[in-house]
Amino acid sequence: MARQRAIYQRIADELRADITAGTLREDMRLPTEAELAQRWKTSRATAVQGLKVLVNEGLIVADRPRGYFVRKRRPMVYRPQAEFRIPEPDADIFRQRIADEQDSREPSQKIEVAISSPSKTVQRRLHIDAKTAVAVRRRMRSIDGDPFNLNDSHVPLSLVEGTDWMSPEDVPRGTNRVLAELGYEIIHSVDEIMVRMPTPEESSRLALGPGTPVAEHIVTGYARRDGRETPVQVTVNILPGDRHVIIYDRVREGESA
Amino acid sequence: MARQRAIYQRIADELRADITAGTLREDMRLPTEAELAQRWKTSRATAVQGLKVLVNEGLIVADRPRGYFVRKRRPMVYRPQAEFRIPEPDADIFRQRIADEQDSREPSQKIEVAISSPSKTVQRRLHIDAKTAVAVRRRMRSIDGDPFNLNDSHVPLSLVEGTDWMSPEDVPRGTNRVLAELGYEIIHSVDEIMVRMPTPEESSRLALGPGTPVAEHIVTGYARRDGRETPVQVTVNILPGDRHVIIYDRVREGESA
Repeated sequence: MARQRAIYQRIADELRADITAGTLREDMRLPTEAELAQRWKTSRATAVQGLKVLVNEGLIVADRPRGYFVRKRRPMVYRPQAEFRIPEPDADIFRQRIADEQDSREPSQKIEVAISSPSKTVQRRLHIDAKTAVAVRRRMRSIDGDPFNLNDSHVPLSLVEGTDWMSPEDVPRGTNRVLAELGYEIIHSVDEIMVRMPTPEESSRLALGPGTPVAEHIVTGYARRDGRETPVQVTVNILPGDRHVIIYDRVREGESA
Repeated sequence: MARQRAIYQRIADELRADITAGTLREDMRLPTEAELAQRWKTSRATAVQGLKVLVNEGLIVADRPRGYFVRKRRPMVYRPQAEFRIPEPDADIFRQRIADEQDSREPSQKIEVAISSPSKTVQRRLHIDAKTAVAVRRRMRSIDGDPFNLNDSHVPLSLVEGTDWMSPEDVPRGTNRVLAELGYEIIHSVDEIMVRMPTPEESSRLALGPGTPVAEHIVTGYARRDGRETPVQVTVNILPGDRHVIIYDRVREGESA
């Protein structure tokens, strides 16, 4: 005979099945702790333990004192390939992505520019050492005032010092255009996508709830210099899993898109 | 004055900083619960609470009774674009990916074929309803015997019934080649990548530890039929975050790769 699952697990299993089946839909309130305890003839602590399982799986959120609710997902469509297709002002590419969803939410962003020494992630991809200063352009993007993602671009300081790339304002013609004007047009990018739990700093900056992993999307941009491809920019995007779907289009060679 | 953080949080903060700085490296053993309790002049329960924070962040693993260890990451390079570039026998594309890492680990896979009614995910992408039967080709891929990822392809049963696509063995010429022979050559794919915590079933099939999110990578393949692009295959890949990095190459139009 199969070993009996603990009551808190069975509570979680039943509620999870209701969410998966759609009986419990987005934003709906779950039974209260007291209701669950009574229905399962168990303690309130056990009911809470069952609910916690689903909180940690990212399926429900606790909104005290109102109760527990099925988590709402309105993922933003994130298309890394759009970078090469449409003009790319800092803000407008973000606006464009929102527009893709035909959605009335209002995007905004905060831009900050810093000079720093490069992290290992950046050093390795730009082929520089820790002593080479980099300019960092940090964007925190929000929708309807809620933080949505972090987007930090790094370029060797010597390439962009004193240029518009370092302006802490929106650059209407786009920072990649600025790089192109300086002779560093990005002609090739490599995207790396890793999946992990957020750091405490990311959790707090992005106001992430429990059970919310992030995608770390690193884009290394290459320009042609002296006939060779040279890495000039590394952008690290932190995309909370509950707010994004990343999309790529792939067309077989010889076919048109 | 900033509010003092609880001791268990400070224990977690200090250990996390050591891991980030590399003082505590992959596979190294952390101080024991008793050592931490003594050093922080606190209870063992509080020390355990601090360690649990890092387990849930996916930074360390508990390997009782040996202790807690810094989590080892040996991510496999996963290149969705390789599908269109190299011949793609079921197993060989997986072998190829391992080979990319110049790594001596031994890949293997289990293949199972089923006939089922399509999930909502599949219905929506294949433009079919719940009553249209689909053939499902399920592959569980392992490295050195450890489960690595799940890869389930779905095609309307009417397209592949009685063909090699449904053979529960490795198909040396590749199942996409079989589709092409049947008149359904995939000429365009759309990749969607979502990030979430695993379901309990995924956790158990993939032997995932706590704090291990997954990428759900859905590939919809389109063939040209009667001059129009028609979706013919939906593949759902479940990629544990601790074992994969997903890579895409993007080349600006007019440039060669």
